[in-house]
Amino acid sequence: MHFSRIGIIVKRDAPAAWQMVVLLTDLLRRQGCSVHIDETAAQSYPAMHEQPACLPQHLLAQAVDLMIVVGGDGTFLEAARNIVNWQRPILGVNLGRLGFLTDIPAADMESRVISVLQGQYETEQRLMLRIRIERNGETCYDQLALNDVVLHKVQMAHMIEFEVAIDNRFVLSQRSDGLIIATPTGSTAYALSAGGPILHPSLEALTLVSINPHSMSNRPIVVASTSRIEIHSSEQRNQPAQITCDGHVKFHLEASDRIFIERHSHVVTMIHPKPHDHFLMLRQKLHWGEKL
Amino acid sequence: MHFSRIGIIVKRDAPAAWQMVVLLTDLLRRQGCSVHIDETAAQSYPAMHEQPACLPQHLLAQAVDLMIVVGGDGTFLEAARNIVNWQRPILGVNLGRLGFLTDIPAADMESRVISVLQGQYETEQRLMLRIRIERNGETCYDQLALNDVVLHKVQMAHMIEFEVAIDNRFVLSQRSDGLIIATPTGSTAYALSAGGPILHPSLEALTLVSINPHSMSNRPIVVASTSRIEIHSSEQRNQPAQITCDGHVKFHLEASDRIFIERHSHVVTMIHPKPHDHFLMLRQKLHWGEKL
Amino acid sequence: MHFSRIGIIVKRDAPAAWQMVVLLTDLLRRQGCSVHIDETAAQSYPAMHEQPACLPQHLLAQAVDLMIVVGGDGTFLEAARNIVNWQRPILGVNLGRLGFLTDIPAADMESRVISVLQGQYETEQRLMLRIRIERNGETCYDQLALNDVVLHKVQMAHMIEFEVAIDNRFVLSQRSDGLIIATPTGSTAYALSAGGPILHPSLEALTLVSINPHSMSNRPIVVASTSRIEIHSSEQRNQPAQITCDGHVKFHLEASDRIFIERHSHVVTMIHPKPHDHFLMLRQKLHWGEKL
Amino acid sequence: MHFSRIGIIVKRDAPAAWQMVVLLTDLLRRQGCSVHIDETAAQSYPAMHEQPACLPQHLLAQAVDLMIVVGGDGTFLEAARNIVNWQRPILGVNLGRLGFLTDIPAADMESRVISVLQGQYETEQRLMLRIRIERNGETCYDQLALNDVVLHKVQMAHMIEFEVAIDNRFVLSQRSDGLIIATPTGSTAYALSAGGPILHPSLEALTLVSINPHSMSNRPIVVASTSRIEIHSSEQRNQPAQITCDGHVKFHLEASDRIFIERHSHVVTMIHPKPHDHFLMLRQKLHWGEKL
Repeated sequence: MHFSRIGIIVKRDAPAAWQMVVLLTDLLRRQGCSVHIDETAAQSYPAMHEQPACLPQHLLAQAVDLMIVVGGDGTFLEAARNIVNWQRPILGVNLGRLGFLTDIPAADMESRVISVLQGQYETEQRLMLRIRIERNGETCYDQLALNDVVLHKVQMAHMIEFEVAIDNRFVLSQRSDGLIIATPTGSTAYALSAGGPILHPSLEALTLVSINPHSMSNRPIVVASTSRIEIHSSEQRNQPAQITCDGHVKFHLEASDRIFIERHSHVVTMIHPKPHDHFLMLRQKLHWGEKL
Repeated sequence: MHFSRIGIIVKRDAPAAWQMVVLLTDLLRRQGCSVHIDETAAQSYPAMHEQPACLPQHLLAQAVDLMIVVGGDGTFLEAARNIVNWQRPILGVNLGRLGFLTDIPAADMESRVISVLQGQYETEQRLMLRIRIERNGETCYDQLALNDVVLHKVQMAHMIEFEVAIDNRFVLSQRSDGLIIATPTGSTAYALSAGGPILHPSLEALTLVSINPHSMSNRPIVVASTSRIEIHSSEQRNQPAQITCDGHVKFHLEASDRIFIERHSHVVTMIHPKPHDHFLMLRQKLHWGEKL
Repeated sequence: MHFSRIGIIVKRDAPAAWQMVVLLTDLLRRQGCSVHIDETAAQSYPAMHEQPACLPQHLLAQAVDLMIVVGGDGTFLEAARNIVNWQRPILGVNLGRLGFLTDIPAADMESRVISVLQGQYETEQRLMLRIRIERNGETCYDQLALNDVVLHKVQMAHMIEFEVAIDNRFVLSQRSDGLIIATPTGSTAYALSAGGPILHPSLEALTLVSINPHSMSNRPIVVASTSRIEIHSSEQRNQPAQITCDGHVKFHLEASDRIFIERHSHVVTMIHPKPHDHFLMLRQKLHWGEKL
Repeated sequence: MHFSRIGIIVKRDAPAAWQMVVLLTDLLRRQGCSVHIDETAAQSYPAMHEQPACLPQHLLAQAVDLMIVVGGDGTFLEAARNIVNWQRPILGVNLGRLGFLTDIPAADMESRVISVLQGQYETEQRLMLRIRIERNGETCYDQLALNDVVLHKVQMAHMIEFEVAIDNRFVLSQRSDGLIIATPTGSTAYALSAGGPILHPSLEALTLVSINPHSMSNRPIVVASTSRIEIHSSEQRNQPAQITCDGHVKFHLEASDRIFIERHSHVVTMIHPKPHDHFLMLRQKLHWGEKL
């Protein structure tokens, strides 16, 4: 696919990011592309010879055929949640430490973006989660997540109790600090800190990782991505609990809430300049051993 | 599918198993089935009114449309390796502690076998691994595994060093006591003791679990079942190493050996009397929490 | 030591506990003991022929030579924090599931208490922690803990960053959900859920267990109980953080707070009716293997 | 203490080590010290102007007041086992990667050895284990270990079953690949790969770490260094098992053997040039976080 209309989404409140946006805009125009930009950050956008059009993220998605995210993994995650339904491929330019999602280092931006515009790229599809919470028979929360949906305790010193069912079958009950339901993308994020396995991005799977479970025989579980997961908390105990999506979208649960998590109907298409090597990135970030 | 020609494979050197075989043969004949039996154990077979025909396992597989394994998980694993290519469904009757694979308890044999003959069953497909080892350009070992292929050190007090590649891409090098490559079936066996995740049997995935890795940043990896895994050991170090398949088929490696592991072309079809609940079995065997 | 003046501390808001207190008071008086009781729960105390004297816990401690705690481990922990400085031995009667600290099951109360009064008991000394927090050069928090002092994140989805020093030497910095500093007593509580080791109660040691550390090379550390531990959080990041003692006494940290944790000057003396077997309790509660 | 008679123990079959020994001998003599050397490596010793006297390690220990080990941690461990009973302090010079025990890097040898001779050093006492195995009522094996005593399976694919008692009290039974009993010194060696905690060297404690335990509720235990540990294997199962000390001294067990492990009566005194910082070494070797 040839990209000519490019949208840019930038990390908020990050002046350093705007230097990159100016460079990137210039480069894209020199390559004959039109540039549109996320309006969220428009007010802080620096003066340019020809200001790019500003649009909210969902309209931006409709106006372009490639989205470039400038920032860190958090910016990428938010963009993915906002635009996944418009099915635009996303390329990530990283400003800080090498990210798992924003895999072009700032220093290499120019050459890697040109590679992509010249068709030298791979695409990779990443599944997302959709969480829906029902209260008194009505949906009171409906969100997407690219990394993970996390059920947390709220009071630091009190574990929560809940049950998990998959495809309408009771799986387990648990007392713990919470439960992480992670995609392959999220398996290298919070789930990894909690002891979960690393799932290859191509895997049609989810992992359920308990956070500090009281029972000693608990282990991470990996299930098919088509699994419909349902969680409900123990009503008797009634400890406050919370849901977060990708660590950022918070929701406070009530005791009778029913939580449904399943694969979202659309996937995120990531663009990687060639050559791309997922295992190389894991080795670098996780300090695995080099060739003997 | 309706089953009328039944093959029986029995745990070797287990007199107790033969009581069950006599009961089972009687039952099957009363239900109008023909019975054939694995010749391996023929000499110890007790006298019966009408002795079943004895055949080696691969001919047995061709003569029947259902295989019943009487024994434990070890007997089931061996039968699966022997007959998977003939694609006969396998039902397991357990004689000891409830098995993960032989899931009919001895006490329930009669009612559960009748259920199966009456069509009250589910089928479940389990993927297997094939390992091939090349030495000086020729295949010197070619085996199947339903649970796992394990690379082990041989000398207790010396770790081994090796590299892993997946689909021709270098993944990691490692110093450890070894590496487990497990199917979903094997994820609740040795891989679990080594800290691996539990993979649902329906998952098209394999897990790579290191055994006591020297590096502290090692974690279990889960990859697609279509992955072609290659291992070769560090030639300089040249510590003796060994391969086992399902814990039973041993092979001593030489330093230049190249090990190739991939999904076998055929799957094992397991028969479960209805109702069957995989998570119930996990809860019972792994002591997970019950419904609140 | 012979006990004749007995204090009783009861779980609050637990009507079931009062049945036990009436039985226990009768028993103690029949054995010739005087009985005093914690005034905290006095208003809910049932009518008795001769009402025991009610005192606040610290005066209660001075008036008796044995304290009996009726409740669960939480009641025991609180009593220990309140009365440790008066050095009275404590006996625990458990009302629910067998506790780690309250090790007399309700059903055996009568016989075990009589054993203790007849001198058939062992004593065991358990070390406690003292935490002191300095803000702007002044102590703003000063607490004791029998199980653990825990540094927690407050916002569910944001890790905290902090440094740890021991005996004025920098040990490590960390990004994680928090850090548990546990006594041997606390090593079977929250620290165990977070992956910590089990320390024998007789051990003069503390364990530092990270909660979901971002770094993959983190491991639990065990240091001498005489270690002076200092924690301070990264001021730049300035994420809200919290301290709890035994899961119950909460304190909100500010970025410049300095946290000092060391062994308390007094120990808790636990009374165990003979025969007492710590490993038996571990086996029962942790489902370890029985004699072969 | 002032050192003037120095013994040198050198890594065997390591020509590179001898360069260091010549430099070290010269240095020591220039500082007015006498030099004796381990006879084990005498035949490969290079020609020098004045050849040092060669003695077996136990006589060497009696002839000197400081022992210098040139090699890696393996050389240090062996020296410690050989000479601990003569109570000579040991200084380690490392030739390869920085060791946990041999903590002077080769490049800094001269300045650090001079520091030590000038009294600029700290001493640190490290406890050792003694293992004794009884067969038919007689001691058939009696060894020391500075890092660990390890009970191993011998056949790769078969777990072993055994019981552990501490101070004559049954602790647990287990099916696993084995059990590591580690000193604080050994807690950063094989025990760490098997998931054990890091014990500070000053701690009077041992840790018991199971190797790939079949039960999911197993956890590392830390007990007082005065604990007398007894292991015996399940006789019925009778799988072959093995003992190693510091990974190097092997012994094959028979089913009825009784294994006794306790703290050795003498400690090893390590010499560290000032300033010495144990946590700094841990941070470097285990990649813990630096000061924020």
